[in-house]
Amino acid sequence: MVKVVIVGGVAGGASAAARARRLDEHAEIILLQSGPDVSFASCGMPYFIGGEITDRATMAVQTPKSLHDKLNLDVRVNTRVNNIDTASKKVHASNEVTGENYEESYDHLILAVGAAPFKPPIPGIERDGLFALRNLQDMDAIVAWLDKKTKDVGGNPGDLHCVVAGAGFVGLEMVEQLLNRGTNVTLVEMLPQILGPLDVEMASYLENDLVKRGVDVITGDAIQEFKECEKDPDSSILTLKSGKVLLPAHLTILGLGVRPDTAVIKDAGIECTPRGHIQVNEYLQTSAPNVWAVGDAVEVNNPLLPGEKWPVPLAGPANRQGRMVADNIFSKGGDMRKYKGTYGTSVVRSFQLYAACVGLNEKMMQAKNLPYSCVHVHPGSHAGYFPGAKEVHLKLIFNPSDGKIYGAQAVGEDGVEKRIDVIATAIQGNMTVDDLAELELCYAPPVGSAKDVVNMAGMAAQNIVEGLLTQVEWNQLDTLANEKETVILDVRNPGEIQRMGTLASNAVNIPLDELRKRLDELDKGKHIVVSCASGQRAYYACRILRQHGFEHVDNLGGAFLTFHEVHPAAAGSSTP
Amino acid sequence: MVKVVIVGGVAGGASAAARARRLDEHAEIILLQSGPDVSFASCGMPYFIGGEITDRATMAVQTPKSLHDKLNLDVRVNTRVNNIDTASKKVHASNEVTGENYEESYDHLILAVGAAPFKPPIPGIERDGLFALRNLQDMDAIVAWLDKKTKDVGGNPGDLHCVVAGAGFVGLEMVEQLLNRGTNVTLVEMLPQILGPLDVEMASYLENDLVKRGVDVITGDAIQEFKECEKDPDSSILTLKSGKVLLPAHLTILGLGVRPDTAVIKDAGIECTPRGHIQVNEYLQTSAPNVWAVGDAVEVNNPLLPGEKWPVPLAGPANRQGRMVADNIFSKGGDMRKYKGTYGTSVVRSFQLYAACVGLNEKMMQAKNLPYSCVHVHPGSHAGYFPGAKEVHLKLIFNPSDGKIYGAQAVGEDGVEKRIDVIATAIQGNMTVDDLAELELCYAPPVGSAKDVVNMAGMAAQNIVEGLLTQVEWNQLDTLANEKETVILDVRNPGEIQRMGTLASNAVNIPLDELRKRLDELDKGKHIVVSCASGQRAYYACRILRQHGFEHVDNLGGAFLTFHEVHPAAAGSSTP
Repeated sequence: MVKVVIVGGVAGGASAAARARRLDEHAEIILLQSGPDVSFASCGMPYFIGGEITDRATMAVQTPKSLHDKLNLDVRVNTRVNNIDTASKKVHASNEVTGENYEESYDHLILAVGAAPFKPPIPGIERDGLFALRNLQDMDAIVAWLDKKTKDVGGNPGDLHCVVAGAGFVGLEMVEQLLNRGTNVTLVEMLPQILGPLDVEMASYLENDLVKRGVDVITGDAIQEFKECEKDPDSSILTLKSGKVLLPAHLTILGLGVRPDTAVIKDAGIECTPRGHIQVNEYLQTSAPNVWAVGDAVEVNNPLLPGEKWPVPLAGPANRQGRMVADNIFSKGGDMRKYKGTYGTSVVRSFQLYAACVGLNEKMMQAKNLPYSCVHVHPGSHAGYFPGAKEVHLKLIFNPSDGKIYGAQAVGEDGVEKRIDVIATAIQGNMTVDDLAELELCYAPPVGSAKDVVNMAGMAAQNIVEGLLTQVEWNQLDTLANEKETVILDVRNPGEIQRMGTLASNAVNIPLDELRKRLDELDKGKHIVVSCASGQRAYYACRILRQHGFEHVDNLGGAFLTFHEVHPAAAGSSTP
Repeated sequence: MVKVVIVGGVAGGASAAARARRLDEHAEIILLQSGPDVSFASCGMPYFIGGEITDRATMAVQTPKSLHDKLNLDVRVNTRVNNIDTASKKVHASNEVTGENYEESYDHLILAVGAAPFKPPIPGIERDGLFALRNLQDMDAIVAWLDKKTKDVGGNPGDLHCVVAGAGFVGLEMVEQLLNRGTNVTLVEMLPQILGPLDVEMASYLENDLVKRGVDVITGDAIQEFKECEKDPDSSILTLKSGKVLLPAHLTILGLGVRPDTAVIKDAGIECTPRGHIQVNEYLQTSAPNVWAVGDAVEVNNPLLPGEKWPVPLAGPANRQGRMVADNIFSKGGDMRKYKGTYGTSVVRSFQLYAACVGLNEKMMQAKNLPYSCVHVHPGSHAGYFPGAKEVHLKLIFNPSDGKIYGAQAVGEDGVEKRIDVIATAIQGNMTVDDLAELELCYAPPVGSAKDVVNMAGMAAQNIVEGLLTQVEWNQLDTLANEKETVILDVRNPGEIQRMGTLASNAVNIPLDELRKRLDELDKGKHIVVSCASGQRAYYACRILRQHGFEHVDNLGGAFLTFHEVHPAAAGSSTP
């Protein structure tokens, strides 16, 4: 009888246990979990805090009893692992409640220990009213604190001020849910933009939306100190690195990312990276015999950067890794499954907007000094003639020589994660931008277009790969507009420019429909940068100019819609 | 200067023209289109009839003037092509309004003639009040007729009776929109089920929903005759093949599929199939030199049945074929693009439900006598603990030896076409069910699950491929329930069975959680067929039984949820 011990029973650990049982009805499977809960819905916690999820019982997806009854698992909650002896194949554990210590031997050990919220050594970080969000106890404590504070201020949450530190996925979800509760929110992010997995011009859609909703968004700054507020000792005065002092915070959420929870594992001599992630091979085996690892604590292959690894703390990969380890343990000498790596496919909702991404972003391409191009498109979520279509802003990053897809990002109110799911699938199938252009997807007026958003992005990329079009990027426009040898050509209609704003005060306006007749107004010796609203007419215009003897013509990537989102003030303040 | 003549300017023809212009600013591009409209939104017509699209102007996506101004196209509407002379490369055309005849020479001819609604030779089919839906004139005529009839009955559409003949995509859209207008609707379909691209158990979800909404759904019957109604000569009495006589119909929609509009093309000696579809090679070239063809009128490769072709009249493929032909015409001796074929990715909305599919269905697999397996899963559209998740019913058809994906079908209220888009992408990337199991997709509580619907289907298929599970299908259950050597084991909880209904009157009920303790109640010599509600617990139960010495254990594919949808009456009438 095989004996499997699993440390950690949330995503990866629970999946490994369930799959192991289905593969071997007779194995002894022991699941050790710190705290009182196993297999809980950690991704749902912000929504319970905000009141969108109201039934706390649904958050405990499984209980020790349900796992025992269904899967004959020996689930031990409130259990801390103190030591692992890989030579004698034993785990030393203690019960966090009773203090009882014991040893458990294993034939196979699966480490699914997860990651803990990062708490930087900031003065005052241990004050009351500061919370990270890792488990249901943290969640309950936040709810209790918010309820108490709301009572303290006379029942009006509008008199509360919350700070969310860190504008990653969880940070943004907490901003949304704290606003939903009616509190005031300041969001502080160290990076120059929110939502680091996206590039700045894509994250801008969300940032601008948060500002419109009244969130005080501070980027490029970090918390220096938490101090007691004299008037209200329960509140904290936050000073930022810039010297800025925030309004007293009744609540601070620390969403500063996670660190692998691997002290015990390092002590056991199992190989970890300098940052503490467990090292695994393609079968998810650690350096110790019969010890496997999955989930937020491991570093996995980055399939888009051959030879490189990255940690990707996401629930989906953790689940599939858990299942795969069980398959490999019980492969009985047969072929083991290989974990290809993690692509970082992810999505976050922020009020009406969704932002999703997969693969590498432009910042990573630049940091790695890899050749790339990108296109930005803005088609509707479904056919334009059918009511209710919303713009999908999509960025595709690819290799301009062979069309290999490196990554994609999308933001919008509808159909956003669908497009990223499709591109994620294409990336995982080693498809190219040509394949995206030709992809056959569902179309009916309420849910798609004959040329889907993904097709449009693929076609735009294909045009770059084939040399039909060359581009400059949104962040080059301001400089170019000041160059004597450059003409910014705006091919929108005058009414659109008046309504939407200008690109540059010296931009020349010739609507596309008039361009062929007015070519002599342009100087063939100059560098012409063309833009319209979303990019399609500018592309047409570039083709016209190129074929009429204009030799230096560039399309403004993403056109006005992308440029404007990063320069809302600049564009708005110009006079049309 | 290259001269390109395009016959037909809706999806494929308009795309070809636009791409041709971008590739060659100096080409002469002439677009010949019968009727007054070019590039109109044909897929939107049912929604205008039903009032969901209110702005008719949006239906004319482009006009001859807009195409001239943007793309310098010579668009000639109301133009009929009478003859094609492939030897002298000339087209003979006439103006449908003025009667003027003329010849137009071409260097390249693109045939995008589309398909016409099929009108079988049924007595009375030329009566007033019978409409097919091909162009905006048909649409306008239907709206006018409905408005007039509604007036005739005193303004109450509830006094009108409409018949929709043919339960394909357009038929179902018309049923929805006629119901939205408040009329009574009878749907008549010759096949034994509605929505032929789906298999019967998947189409049942939509059929049951239509019946609940008051639609009189008649399958396995066809119209024999239309006769004048004595009391109201504007209405028709429909007699069906079965002898059934319908209530007088104030309006009949003929949604009986389409036939390629290729009489002129066949006469020109261009090779067509016996059913009239234009034959093209992988570059979309016809048998005549410099003559290309795209869209509903052509037969294309079926990439899932190597060597076989099929006609797939869908807007998306037509658009992409048009673009590809332009690329190939202007490839200037370079590599031409190859059209891989059409996968039949499609979706239809029917009230709250969406139904989508891709690839081959089970009926096709059986007709071709190909080895296949299928799995049915019923997960939620997003995480179960987050409010508002809807069941996605998904069927995956695959090769049980190598995991090749043949097709998929899905029905539900949310996230349906997203899953088919992902599987369609996987099929186009030659991925397998293993890849679906491991696919990394977006997950946040409001829009997905850590194990997405697609992952679940892939994992279920993987279990079949690897022999962890064997299955019987929903349509074998009634027979099996009557066999002495078979036990139907229902592992749901008694409360669920009482609420949902039974599988068979003699089914044995042992809830999964009690199964390990109650194994001795089952006979190891018997064939045990296991089911639960959605299939997951039955799978667990099968694994338990198999590993406890039960040798002949089968899972009921799709479990109660699939079985019940095809047997609502049978299951409902059983006493629990």
